[in-house]
Parts: sequence; C-alpha cells; structure tokens
Amino acid sequence: MRQRLTVDAYTEGILAGDRIILSRAITLIESRLKNDRQIAGKVLKNILPATGRSLRIGITGVPGVGKSTFIEVFGKHLTSLNKKITVLTIDPSSKKSGGSILADKTRMENLAHDPLAYIRPSAAGLSLGGVARNTREAMLLCEAAGYEIIVIETVGVGQSETLVRGMTDFFLLLMLAGAGDELQGIKKGIMEMADAVAINKADGKNKTAARQAVDEYRNALHLFPKSDSGFTTRVITCSALEGTGIPELWELIEDYEKLTAHNGFFKRNRQSQNLEWMHDYIRQTLEDQFYENPTMKKSVKVIEKSVSEGKELPIAAAQKLLNAFLKTKN
Amino acid sequence: MRQRLTVDAYTEGILAGDRIILSRAITLIESRLKNDRQIAGKVLKNILPATGRSLRIGITGVPGVGKSTFIEVFGKHLTSLNKKITVLTIDPSSKKSGGSILADKTRMENLAHDPLAYIRPSAAGLSLGGVARNTREAMLLCEAAGYEIIVIETVGVGQSETLVRGMTDFFLLLMLAGAGDELQGIKKGIMEMADAVAINKADGKNKTAARQAVDEYRNALHLFPKSDSGFTTRVITCSALEGTGIPELWELIEDYEKLTAHNGFFKRNRQSQNLEWMHDYIRQTLEDQFYENPTMKKSVKVIEKSVSEGKELPIAAAQKLLNAFLKTKN
Repeated sequence: MRQRLTVDAYTEGILAGDRIILSRAITLIESRLKNDRQIAGKVLKNILPATGRSLRIGITGVPGVGKSTFIEVFGKHLTSLNKKITVLTIDPSSKKSGGSILADKTRMENLAHDPLAYIRPSAAGLSLGGVARNTREAMLLCEAAGYEIIVIETVGVGQSETLVRGMTDFFLLLMLAGAGDELQGIKKGIMEMADAVAINKADGKNKTAARQAVDEYRNALHLFPKSDSGFTTRVITCSALEGTGIPELWELIEDYEKLTAHNGFFKRNRQSQNLEWMHDYIRQTLEDQFYENPTMKKSVKVIEKSVSEGKELPIAAAQKLLNAFLKTKN
Repeated sequence: MRQRLTVDAYTEGILAGDRIILSRAITLIESRLKNDRQIAGKVLKNILPATGRSLRIGITGVPGVGKSTFIEVFGKHLTSLNKKITVLTIDPSSKKSGGSILADKTRMENLAHDPLAYIRPSAAGLSLGGVARNTREAMLLCEAAGYEIIVIETVGVGQSETLVRGMTDFFLLLMLAGAGDELQGIKKGIMEMADAVAINKADGKNKTAARQAVDEYRNALHLFPKSDSGFTTRVITCSALEGTGIPELWELIEDYEKLTAHNGFFKRNRQSQNLEWMHDYIRQTLEDQFYENPTMKKSVKVIEKSVSEGKELPIAAAQKLLNAFLKTKN
C-alpha cells in the first residue's frame, strides 16, 4: 500500500469527489491493520454528515443471467440522465478462488470509463461478514463523494443476497425466461425478497417466452406475502443487449422511491438497517475474536469433525470450545 | 422446583419412557442455574446414544389457520398407527405476554390425554436463542424417551420459522384458501422453505376455493428453486375438522423420508444441522455474555436511540459498546 494520507486529506478528497482519493480511502477501510482502522474510523466520522442521500439498489441473479451487461446498460442509462453511479460487488466466491470473474473490472469497460460512474469490486479473501463491513463502509464513502445511486451487485451464493437486501433500499432480481433448470441456482426465499423481478434477455426469439414468464411470475407473486414497504413486487422484461425495458425499470424504481418516501417506509427501513448494522458489527467482532483466535481455529476443526460424525453433542462440543476460548484469554 | 433427581435417575427414567421424569428433565434443561446446567449436561451426554432416531417435523402457519386442531388430528392419526409423538411449541410471543395461547396445553386436550402423545409448550420469557436451545435439548430427551415423531410447532413471528426449519427434517406450512389479506401474516421467504403446503379448512363451502388455491400454489411453486433435498414441494388440501387429507399428508411425509434417506440428504441435513447447532450455541453464548451484561443492557439502549436517529455511525457506536464491554471484564 502506498503511503497513507492524513485524515484531512482523505476527508477533503472524498468530499470533493476525487476518485483517486476515494479509491485509496476504500483500500484503507479494507485494511485490517489497527492503524489503518483508526484513520478509517476518523475519516468515516468526518464524512458522516454527507452520507445517506443516495438511493441504494441491490441486484442479484445467477451466473449466466447477464448481470454485468445489464448493470452496464442500466448504469449508462443513469449517467445519461446525468446521475452519478457507483457499482460495488459482493462476491463470496472470490474468497475461495482468490479472485473471481466479478472482480474483473474490465467486464464493464464502457461504464468504467464513464466519468459519472465508479466501479469497485469487493476485496477477496474475506469472510462474508468482513465483506459486508467493507461494502457498507465503501457505500458511505461513495455517497460522501457525491454518488447518487449505489448499485450493490451479488451472485446467488451463500448468504450474500440477504446481506445485500439488508443494506439497500431496493432489491432487484434478474432472471431468465424458461423456469426450471436455470433457476435452481437461485436460493430459496430470494424470489420473495425482491421488489422487482426483471426477466432479462427478452430479445429475439426469447421474447415470447419472456412475456409468458412475466405472466407466470406475476400470478405466482400475488400469492405471496406483501412487503412491509407497501410496494407490490413488479415483474418486467428487459434486454440489456437491445436496451429495452431499462428506462421502464428506472421509472419503476423511482415509483418505489416516491411511494416509500411518502409512506415513511424508506426512512424506517434505513433506521432499522442502521441498527442491524451496529448489532451485526458487534456480533461479527465477538465471533471474530473467537473464530480468528489461532488456538481456536485448530480446535474448531477437530471438534466439527466429531460433531458431524455424531460422536459428540453439539452443545457439549460448543461448551468445550467456549471453555478453551476462555483459557486463551487468561 | 422440586428436588433434583440424580443424573442416573433422570437418565434411567427417560430411557424407560417415564413421562413424569421426562417432564422434570425438560424443566431441568430449561433452568439457567449453573448447577442445573451441569446435571442437564451429564444427562444429555448419557442419553445421546438413544437420540436422533425420530422424524422431526416442523409446522408453521399464521394464527387462525387452525394449527392446534390440525396438530391434534394429525397426532391422533399417528397414535392410531401406534406411533409415539411429541409436540413441542416455539412461541416467541410468549416472551412479551408472559404467557400465550400456544402455551395453553388444554387446547389439544384429546391428544394430551393420549398415552402415546406428549405435549410440551416452550418456556416463556426467553430470547429466541434461548428457546431454540431449550427446544433442541427437549427434542433429544423426547427421542431418548422413545418418541418416534417430534412435531415442533411455531407461529409465523420473528425468526422462529427459520429456527424450526433448521432443527427439523420436514417443514410443513399450513395455509388457508383465499390468498390475500390472510397471508400477510406469513413472512416473506417462508413459503419457499416448505416441503409441503397444506391448505387447511378445506371443508364445507371452502372446498372449491381450497382446490383452486392448490392449483395456484402448485403453479407458483414450480417456478421457485428446487430444494436440496430432491423432493418437490407438494401442495395438498386437508380439513382438520373432517379429518380429510391427514392420512395423505402422512404418506407424503413418509415419501419424503424414504426419498431423502435413499439419496443421502436426510443424513447430510442432520449433520449440517448439528454443526449449525454447535455454532449457534457458541454465537449465542458470546452474544449473551455481551447483551445480558447489566452495564451493557443500559448502554445499548442509549446508543441504539442515537444510531437510529442518525446521530452516530453504526460502526462507531458498535466500537464504543465493544470497548465498554471490554472494560466490564477487567
């Protein structure tokens, strides 16, 4: 890492919308070094008054659904309306592979070169909790740098959608026509969390199937519980390739924003997300202290084996580990 | 509490299927006294080899769906097949009210007097984590006492369904015909977690609507992701009042059991549930140490207010609380 800037230099650079300083600040918040954390904490505190004014949009969909192309076209539509947009990605798979397709910034080259857009993949090699922490902090930095729309993109893996749902105002699920095999990658429960479902690749000979899928999903979704937002989940078609459906989607999101601003859900949701964020951070720290402890790391592995083989009761095993943890601190 | 028995007396009584001793043992595991916990731990360890052989069934549905009557009739059907059944309830609402409808054992009077059935409401006044811990331990005790089917019942409140889903082999959602207002009590994502959806009260003039609901849900569910179990979610009608659909439901559950035993999911699921249980217990204990600490209880309240009003960053607030916690331990 290059030399650190001062707290003031970070703060002023971010507030002035300087992309290079923004990037360095995000790298700073990603650092786990104590010194870096301290500076990061001060910077975050300084920029706090300039945060929270963006619209936060979560986007998910299985690999192959065309997320990158979609986000690129969606992003270009927003910048054409003179809006500043950030794309952050949460990609749990990058943990295993140590680098992932999502981390490849070049896949949205067109958007990446747009002066109104800023794209940042998530740091690899972290736990999901760590990724969440980084993403939330990066989001604040981007907001302070004047980005009005923050897109947080994720793949349908692990708990990442729930995480993204919990840090955004609006949640979009991208799907393909032809329910069945393609959908199996989507986790159970995700469909019901969406504020909108967009059937992507509704172009050429897919058009008819896409329109049919819209009808099916609309029928299906009306059976499902209503959202607390008061907004009825909408199903639309779009084609990132042909650019169709994108302006309509943006209008839909604006409708959502208006409705929830009016009925108070937008603010309430943000407040409860903030509380959740605080408690997540506490829990995550408590767990990290336990699970990241070198002695515990070894013991946990051994005991996990004996529990999953049924040789030991989960609770007895947990107590054993908790006692061992207590000893490491004395 | 009456005088405690010895570890051996509890163990032998439970293994002999003595209901009075079983009840006293469950009261013991519900106790948070250190001495009780120690005895409970030993008893649980002793009976461990006799656990795990039951079929664990989770049942949820909003108030008004007819859960009690349904479970009573379902239970009586099982005892008529000479099967021993336990009904445990997880009722988060009992925390607030200090006593709830669900806790009222008399509502299943018929089943409660059946010598093959054992009904036990969850202890009130606990956190959801505490309820989960108790329920899992009670489940083991009941299994050791020879109960072959454990029904865990919950209402659609808070996180309780996810909890029940995570400790059972099969998850049943009870619903009513007439999608709409009635369904709003069900949380988003629950529908997709079900292995079967039963449209209850399919009797009298409700029959047509119920059959129509079955078609609608079947259409809807086939659009949704398949379960890891390899079992396709089934939608049926039943009437607890008339007793119709209950034998069919039991056959369906047996089909599920056979299929998942054969494809290995049943065992895999149990193993991963055991690991989850252990990690839940660890996390819960770490959190309890923090949140149950009297000093922290007060500070958390004050800081929650300032976070939800946007006066403080969630992370800064969390760090402040974590530092305060560290001090309470020195």
